[in-house]
Amino acid sequence: MKWVYDFAEGSREMRDLLGGKGANVAEMTRILGPERVPAGFTITTEACVAYMGTDEFPAGLEEQVAAALARLEGQAGKRLGDPEDPLLVSVRSGARESMPGMLDTVLNLGLNDASVAGLAARTGNERFAWDSYRRFVQMFGNVVLGIEGRRFEDLIAAAKRERGVSEDTDLDAEALRALTARFQELYDFPADPADQLRRAIAAVFDSWTGERAVAYRRINRIPDSWGTAVNVQQMVFGNKGEDSGSGVAFSRDEVTGAPEPSGDFLANAQGEDVVSGVRTPRDIRELESWQPAVHAQLMEILRALERHYGDMQDTEFTVEEGRLYMLQTRNAKRPAQAAVRFAVDAVSEGLLEREAALMTIDAEALDALLHPTFDPGASYAVVAEGVAASPGAAKGELVFSAAVAIRAAAEGRDVILARPFTEADDVAGFHAAVGILTSEGGKASHAALVARGMGVPAVTGAASLEIDPDAGEIRRGGEVVLRAGDRVAIDGSAGALTGDDVPLVEPEVGEAFETVLAWADEARSLGVRANADTPEDARKAREFGAEGIGLCRTEHMFFGVERSEAIVAVILAETDEGRRAGLRKLLPLQQGDFEAIFAAMEGRPVTIRLLDPPLHEFLPSLADVEERLRAAEEAGSPDVGTLERDLARVRTLQEVNPMLGTRGVRLGILFPAIYEMQVEAIFAALKVTRDRGVEVSAEIMVPLVDYRRELEILREQIVAIGERVGVERGRDYSIGTMIELPRACLRADEIAEEADFFSFGTNDLTQTALGFSRDDIEGRILGRYIEMKVFDRSPFETLDTPGVGQLVRMGAWLGRKAKEDLKLGICGEHGGDPDSIDFFHNSGIDYVSCSPYRVPVARVAAAQSAIRANGKETK
Amino acid sequence: MKWVYDFAEGSREMRDLLGGKGANVAEMTRILGPERVPAGFTITTEACVAYMGTDEFPAGLEEQVAAALARLEGQAGKRLGDPEDPLLVSVRSGARESMPGMLDTVLNLGLNDASVAGLAARTGNERFAWDSYRRFVQMFGNVVLGIEGRRFEDLIAAAKRERGVSEDTDLDAEALRALTARFQELYDFPADPADQLRRAIAAVFDSWTGERAVAYRRINRIPDSWGTAVNVQQMVFGNKGEDSGSGVAFSRDEVTGAPEPSGDFLANAQGEDVVSGVRTPRDIRELESWQPAVHAQLMEILRALERHYGDMQDTEFTVEEGRLYMLQTRNAKRPAQAAVRFAVDAVSEGLLEREAALMTIDAEALDALLHPTFDPGASYAVVAEGVAASPGAAKGELVFSAAVAIRAAAEGRDVILARPFTEADDVAGFHAAVGILTSEGGKASHAALVARGMGVPAVTGAASLEIDPDAGEIRRGGEVVLRAGDRVAIDGSAGALTGDDVPLVEPEVGEAFETVLAWADEARSLGVRANADTPEDARKAREFGAEGIGLCRTEHMFFGVERSEAIVAVILAETDEGRRAGLRKLLPLQQGDFEAIFAAMEGRPVTIRLLDPPLHEFLPSLADVEERLRAAEEAGSPDVGTLERDLARVRTLQEVNPMLGTRGVRLGILFPAIYEMQVEAIFAALKVTRDRGVEVSAEIMVPLVDYRRELEILREQIVAIGERVGVERGRDYSIGTMIELPRACLRADEIAEEADFFSFGTNDLTQTALGFSRDDIEGRILGRYIEMKVFDRSPFETLDTPGVGQLVRMGAWLGRKAKEDLKLGICGEHGGDPDSIDFFHNSGIDYVSCSPYRVPVARVAAAQSAIRANGKETK
Repeated sequence: MKWVYDFAEGSREMRDLLGGKGANVAEMTRILGPERVPAGFTITTEACVAYMGTDEFPAGLEEQVAAALARLEGQAGKRLGDPEDPLLVSVRSGARESMPGMLDTVLNLGLNDASVAGLAARTGNERFAWDSYRRFVQMFGNVVLGIEGRRFEDLIAAAKRERGVSEDTDLDAEALRALTARFQELYDFPADPADQLRRAIAAVFDSWTGERAVAYRRINRIPDSWGTAVNVQQMVFGNKGEDSGSGVAFSRDEVTGAPEPSGDFLANAQGEDVVSGVRTPRDIRELESWQPAVHAQLMEILRALERHYGDMQDTEFTVEEGRLYMLQTRNAKRPAQAAVRFAVDAVSEGLLEREAALMTIDAEALDALLHPTFDPGASYAVVAEGVAASPGAAKGELVFSAAVAIRAAAEGRDVILARPFTEADDVAGFHAAVGILTSEGGKASHAALVARGMGVPAVTGAASLEIDPDAGEIRRGGEVVLRAGDRVAIDGSAGALTGDDVPLVEPEVGEAFETVLAWADEARSLGVRANADTPEDARKAREFGAEGIGLCRTEHMFFGVERSEAIVAVILAETDEGRRAGLRKLLPLQQGDFEAIFAAMEGRPVTIRLLDPPLHEFLPSLADVEERLRAAEEAGSPDVGTLERDLARVRTLQEVNPMLGTRGVRLGILFPAIYEMQVEAIFAALKVTRDRGVEVSAEIMVPLVDYRRELEILREQIVAIGERVGVERGRDYSIGTMIELPRACLRADEIAEEADFFSFGTNDLTQTALGFSRDDIEGRILGRYIEMKVFDRSPFETLDTPGVGQLVRMGAWLGRKAKEDLKLGICGEHGGDPDSIDFFHNSGIDYVSCSPYRVPVARVAAAQSAIRANGKETK
Repeated sequence: MKWVYDFAEGSREMRDLLGGKGANVAEMTRILGPERVPAGFTITTEACVAYMGTDEFPAGLEEQVAAALARLEGQAGKRLGDPEDPLLVSVRSGARESMPGMLDTVLNLGLNDASVAGLAARTGNERFAWDSYRRFVQMFGNVVLGIEGRRFEDLIAAAKRERGVSEDTDLDAEALRALTARFQELYDFPADPADQLRRAIAAVFDSWTGERAVAYRRINRIPDSWGTAVNVQQMVFGNKGEDSGSGVAFSRDEVTGAPEPSGDFLANAQGEDVVSGVRTPRDIRELESWQPAVHAQLMEILRALERHYGDMQDTEFTVEEGRLYMLQTRNAKRPAQAAVRFAVDAVSEGLLEREAALMTIDAEALDALLHPTFDPGASYAVVAEGVAASPGAAKGELVFSAAVAIRAAAEGRDVILARPFTEADDVAGFHAAVGILTSEGGKASHAALVARGMGVPAVTGAASLEIDPDAGEIRRGGEVVLRAGDRVAIDGSAGALTGDDVPLVEPEVGEAFETVLAWADEARSLGVRANADTPEDARKAREFGAEGIGLCRTEHMFFGVERSEAIVAVILAETDEGRRAGLRKLLPLQQGDFEAIFAAMEGRPVTIRLLDPPLHEFLPSLADVEERLRAAEEAGSPDVGTLERDLARVRTLQEVNPMLGTRGVRLGILFPAIYEMQVEAIFAALKVTRDRGVEVSAEIMVPLVDYRRELEILREQIVAIGERVGVERGRDYSIGTMIELPRACLRADEIAEEADFFSFGTNDLTQTALGFSRDDIEGRILGRYIEMKVFDRSPFETLDTPGVGQLVRMGAWLGRKAKEDLKLGICGEHGGDPDSIDFFHNSGIDYVSCSPYRVPVARVAAAQSAIRANGKETK
């Protein structure tokens, strides 16, 4: 078994085996030449997997590492631990997918009391040697042995105080030697470099099964079985003096996507100084004045890498005594507007074909572009300023923990999650929150990265605030300014925190985004419709490019005072006549709604679902009527009789499990007058709208069908009404059903014989297939189940493909078997979720339908699915 | 197309084409010879099917009937309608399956004012001729034209009054002539015999789609598409004088099954006189003294038919002037005890092999043998009728709440619990009551299901009664008929409520039944277990031959005053410590139950389901706590604080859809302490029982699993407890899961990897697969759906095989694919339903589990499935 690959042997195709970092370093070695990339080798992910079961290095690994090290020593002309001229190496983890929150880098490995002297002698720079050594002892203790970083920082601070200096760089060799000795008192430092290396490698392996990594994998759905690779690389030194330095560089602006490289660097520093925030880094543009040749080389390299990878790059580099080394490159994570900008620029620059450009966009993240922002014309008091870490604005109530955020979100509340800084554990809360606020960290902080990845607006580093989760309050200068539950607003595009009185403006789809969406429409085969219950929704849906309405819920038309009174009268009616009188009042109102929606859609298909929810949902609650009855009795009011009757009716309609109760088609069969009125209203609206010269395509959808016969009964009723008023199935309208019960999926062939179309109601299908009432247990169970690794994401958010998805496929297959041209749609929330969309695309579904705001996301996701399926992901 | 078959052409194998009656008459013709069976022909069911669409005779039918009639006329030497010597025929319907409630027989067809004279002249018996004619006019009017029978009977009664006679037979020819004329005034009588025949045939066809027949088919699940055959047969006359007669004869006693023929006959009468009750028929044994030769012939024929058919026969015969004709034979319907007796006798007589004998028994009907019943000899006044919801009879005093029932039972009183309908809260009362009475709900209502599960007799849907628990009285039409404390009796086999003066008889599994059950056990491969929650249930289960307990519901062990207080304390506990304190109290109680159950089962497997229902089911209702809180507040009681806390807790636990809520394994994962206590109690009981020298086979079942990981978590927890107390999975106990959610069926292969066994919970699986809450909509929807032909039987009674059954098969197949030796059981209500059992047998299930009282039914049904599968149904 080959466990170890030299960088010179690898390539980017070997990502699964070498991890992302290892594969990219190998690739860079190939394209930039070995003089630009310090040599080294990668221990494969397979070695990690073999280690995982046994906690022992697999047979042959130790020997292969020794051989690779010997080759590296030969190349470098130095030996690890050599007291004359020691080779130093870095050890880094690198999984297939980047996983922040895993083991960090260990630098300068190979130093000990003997070799540090050799380093000093060889470089003639004693301070540099001791600085390197103390860094290594510090990192090894912290990263490999898990000793708290603060204990080292405290010792550094003490050393600075003792010497009366303020910067780390002001500590001289002697001070650093003393500091190193103090560090070594914190733990049993292994002096033998081979031992150091072995333990560092094992620590990387162990980190794969560590708590933080496991939590991260849950959320990001990375399989436990992958394992991580380990990269061992010859050190180069950015801390060798003022002509040395380290930095990070993006091939384009990482926030806006503008085609100018961006980044930070520090002179006389190692990489971790740049990101740790201990010293304030300089803008990459200043590199030009500092070392023009290095700057030019770097710019050229960034262009070359971008061309080679066909994507925006995020790199790390080190300058050692004026010589530039590239340590790492990877495709840059970026916010949505940067992603869109890059895609459009990449095509116009000839860097990528349209399909490949589309694939560089994270469809889910586009959501951020569709969020509102603060009204730029409004004036408002800024409570605090911070870093504009993830764009978009949001309003909600303040919460201080991920757990509370999840619970509140399950209850439908909008929350802003505030933390001093964030960690892997907080990520579940990111999903639940509409915005993130931290007092620490910049644009590259954990909070910023994760928030941008998810398209959640975030303001980080609001340093004037003291965020105290335990007390549930935010203080400034000791004074409480905000408390848990207070409503606030944040603008992640501007980096501002305000009260919630600021007006938000609706997002606009900018020019670049329009371009991307147009390409997406060309590429995709899956249709995208919107769920819209009102004429306003319908107009919004069209604005965002919906090709029709996939779900128009008629019950929402019963809300509003006048209407809800009428529907209550219908439900409380004791006679059929009474019921019909109420329905006659509702008919023109429904008809009016349908007319406006038909007009807005101009001939695009509109799927209208007949009344679905159980009747008691329209009634006052039992407790309410009881209360009113009690009051009326006490007051001796004449309403007692009516209220008693109402109470009896409410009681009769009460259900133990309304979700599984008298709703949908069951209601239609028990009380035919209601659906009759709705169908009459649809037909009347259809005729009126056509008479005005507007095309109409009406699809009548019967919900909650289990049995073919149920749909047959309704089909007969609808067709009969149609014949009476002179509209014809097939020509003027079609009849279909929601497939939202497991039985319907299993008998879809029979049901299809009565239907012109199916629309999979994946919300209810998930509830019934899983026996999982979203209302009841999402708040209670979801967090616990993610924690216990039952699932990694709510099945209501991303389709449970192995279970519910199988039912959808069965239903689609059987339906088409019975009726080849059966139209198949999706109208659950999953219709707007990119992962679910990919599944639907591959299941032969014709269209998805989602909330109007998700339509652009769905268009891009659908295009990506088609591109993937056609094998055109890369240029 | 051949639409018509002479009797001489047919055989019993042609039942589908000729109907039961036609096939049997043809068969009799073949085995008894044409001299014993009047000749005739059968119009096929296919002709009826062809007629159904168009309401017109299919092409060729009229001609073929004419040709067959001509052949019949040739054979008889008479012509239909001949004024000299007319041929008369009977016309009878005959579907594949006997369908009482369909069109009756029309006799003497062919008579009119002309031919009646010929008949009189030829027979020299004017009275006979006119009696035949008036009978025909009456039957044609009643049966073909639907004129009420009473209108004819009134005219007969008037004629008898006029003549001052009391018997029909005392009316002379003149009187009958006058009567016939009066009959003809009631409608437009068709004189043309060809017209008579055509209309009679069409009337039989029409009757197939008549209301009564459709209703009958719904209930008996006979497809509409079958159609009925029509039999046209030459008349022979039992009313030709004192040496003529008609009768029905069974080859054995039709009530007891004793091996002596039984039946009735009347001299000088046609068939309908025997069954109509107008005259009192004579016992078949008297036939011997009346006409010994005929008696001997009949006895010989009955033996021959029984031998030929291998089943008890139910025949019709006519004696015309001393000559015996057999008109019909069919397998006799008989009550359970007769069926059992016949089966045993048939084997000992060498008539049938055991397998074939078993197949003659209707397994479902055996249920009647296992419950006390009203003494069939006693006379009593029925107070109200309802649905026969759970078989058996019981006497006790009326109570109106579960709480009162429990208290009364604790005092040793027998109570009948009366409720308008029942809910989960009432279940504790079911345990305490000897019988259940409701005014709402049918056979599949909550009350009926729970009662059958517990073997408690129940009458549901006694719709004439108004059961008012608040007033503690039962009213009918506003008038109080019964009060709390009144003693009543119910018969759940008959659906009757009476006073308690009716004597009951206890069921006995008699010797013959034991023999049948022993054969069944030999024949079947499907195991039969019982659902039993208490030691008494377990003992009863063994008594009825259960091979183990397939479902022991531990929550039922939490009822009873002391226990329910403890579990309420557990649920209301705010701290884990408080919860554990309550659980510590419950542990010894549960342990004691398990010990007694283990002891009763003596090493047979006992499947114990860990707590399943949502916690709020154990709590007082929200309204109840609110009420108590209000009272406490008004009284200024110090309990206010506690009650407020309780109220908050009850509110928290309240669920919108408890069926889909926090129950089963979800509860186990959220509150691990509860399952931990239960598992500890099981293991402790296991060890104690073994120490007493009794074998124990414990199967721990985790309910409501969706995901493999859920079961894995519980498996780890259970195994850890086992290791702590020294019992070992595989050796001492096994771990399995209930498969009761669609997702579990779809992912059964994964779940099987964590399980030693599956038990399909087909009740909940039906609820989730159909999205159908039994509690809520059974009463509302079931009747309407049967009426609208959505389904023909409740899917909770007989498994919905096309939908839910497919999920069961999928789960079984996937489970076994992953684990070849996975044990598969059924523990829903369907486990005791013969049709469902047949499906389970053919799906590779290892055992079914049902209520103890259903065990014998299941044993026989399982045997029948095996016999059918082996093709050994017939001797």
